Amino acid sequence: MSLLVTGSIGIDCVTTPHGKRENIIGGSAVYFSWAAANFSKVRLVAVVGDDCPRSFESAFKHPEIDTAGLERRAGSKTFRWSGSYDPTMNEATTTAVVLNVLAEKTPTVPKQFADSKIVFLAATHPALQMELLAQVKSPRLVVADTRDLWISQYHKELIASLKKVDGLVLNDLEARLLTGQVNLPAAMKQIRKMLKPSGPRMVVLKKGEHGCLTLYEDMLFPMPAYPTEKVIDPTGAGDSFAGGMLGYLAGLPRWSALHVKQAVVAGTVMASFTIQGFSLDGLKKANKTVIAARMAEFKKMLTAGLVK
Amino acid sequence: MSLLVTGSIGIDCVTTPHGKRENIIGGSAVYFSWAAANFSKVRLVAVVGDDCPRSFESAFKHPEIDTAGLERRAGSKTFRWSGSYDPTMNEATTTAVVLNVLAEKTPTVPKQFADSKIVFLAATHPALQMELLAQVKSPRLVVADTRDLWISQYHKELIASLKKVDGLVLNDLEARLLTGQVNLPAAMKQIRKMLKPSGPRMVVLKKGEHGCLTLYEDMLFPMPAYPTEKVIDPTGAGDSFAGGMLGYLAGLPRWSALHVKQAVVAGTVMASFTIQGFSLDGLKKANKTVIAARMAEFKKMLTAGLVK
Repeated sequence: MSLLVTGSIGIDCVTTPHGKRENIIGGSAVYFSWAAANFSKVRLVAVVGDDCPRSFESAFKHPEIDTAGLERRAGSKTFRWSGSYDPTMNEATTTAVVLNVLAEKTPTVPKQFADSKIVFLAATHPALQMELLAQVKSPRLVVADTRDLWISQYHKELIASLKKVDGLVLNDLEARLLTGQVNLPAAMKQIRKMLKPSGPRMVVLKKGEHGCLTLYEDMLFPMPAYPTEKVIDPTGAGDSFAGGMLGYLAGLPRWSALHVKQAVVAGTVMASFTIQGFSLDGLKKANKTVIAARMAEFKKMLTAGLVK
Repeated sequence: MSLLVTGSIGIDCVTTPHGKRENIIGGSAVYFSWAAANFSKVRLVAVVGDDCPRSFESAFKHPEIDTAGLERRAGSKTFRWSGSYDPTMNEATTTAVVLNVLAEKTPTVPKQFADSKIVFLAATHPALQMELLAQVKSPRLVVADTRDLWISQYHKELIASLKKVDGLVLNDLEARLLTGQVNLPAAMKQIRKMLKPSGPRMVVLKKGEHGCLTLYEDMLFPMPAYPTEKVIDPTGAGDSFAGGMLGYLAGLPRWSALHVKQAVVAGTVMASFTIQGFSLDGLKKANKTVIAARMAEFKKMLTAGLVK
């Protein structure tokens, strides 16, 4: 099934207890695409400025990633993000952010992408997410990500946008902020009611090293994170999770609720590769063989001894 | 297999977003025993003062709990704890604590309990834990709980005590404090090396609403918490978890690593009952039927769709 992602490409500066990297490639669309590409083809819609480093080119040359929707906009500057992590690496502190080209008009969804069946709208202003979504004809599953900023400052627009998507990916603080509900399963059930009523409604609550909670239709299930002994840089873990999850679903001809659980395993495993290196280093080391092996290991970790 | 618990009985005052309760029964030994008693007989060793309310009597009259080791000490006062929780209910703030009888000499392990095979030493001064343990002849599995206080202020005694136990139950902050390791799986492996070398070494890292990580011999596995929509009072969740886990193992003639995983399911489920009411209210509502049903539901939640 065709998979489309709209999101950012950024020039990142990241500091973690394991070191500092400057001007490395980052951004939601990049992590999502590289994670998803292990399971299905990916259609990328994103925009960079003409200052985008040549060294980023290799990240756009992936046999499974169609970059027809990647715009290099003359006279504009690429999105930049700088952040650092405390020793537990659970929380990123943004030390600098310059939207640059992301504050201008959105890129265009190429005509050949308009028939995409699964769409991931990475976090940005909800009105921009809707502008991009409007260019896709009849998607079967639309999942959006969001951030506390959009929930608190563009609440009305966000609420309106939720009515047009089937799924929302967010973290625990964001779910509490959106619903006023402290209890997470209760917050998720409230969010489900805000989504497009006709779709396969899905709420995925990301909790970083503590895993995630997923509500898909009436099925609620928790899943821990894959235990990773060496975390180098958590940047991009959430988008890699979404990429693994939706890439997995896109690789299937159709899916049921139980496939969604397999997809969450795929997302969890892709996030675990991402955090094992700076930028795309971790994801670049992953291939179908090691991914399948880690998925099998993780499933065994979750189920061995619990089923006859 | 015989199961012994040493721990506290307290007069608690608890405030949560769901209300306030004064002079209710609490304490590690109480929660542990009531959770464990659903799976095996429990031998209780604890001490109260002669001010212990008559209303507590019913908590000590349980067909599966042998209170031969419960001492009512004349002239002493019962342990008291007051605490409150923030809206997320992840962290308790102790507003008052008076050790009273817990600061005096330990209770005596009755002679008929000296052959106990599984021993749980609830958190207290490590030297007192060792004094109690010395009265048990040849236990097969000894698991201790600890707190940040003992790790930071009685470090030497704690380290010495770990050499005499097979398992340690602690939370993430405590594991980091004990090892200086931020990464949790790495911290757990370091703790495993501190335990009695000959035993079935077990490290259980409790993360509250985020579940737990267990290391048993070479098997490391994460397990999420049971998603509970209405959390009334988290007090006693950790001790109920330990009670469910060790009670489950005590109910088996012998066990392997995979039984430990089932035991962690039992512990997780018992904790989920505890937090659904103040004091013992939640645990008192649980019986073998509802416990078996929730364990089956939880196992299905964890495994459905992930195994053929």
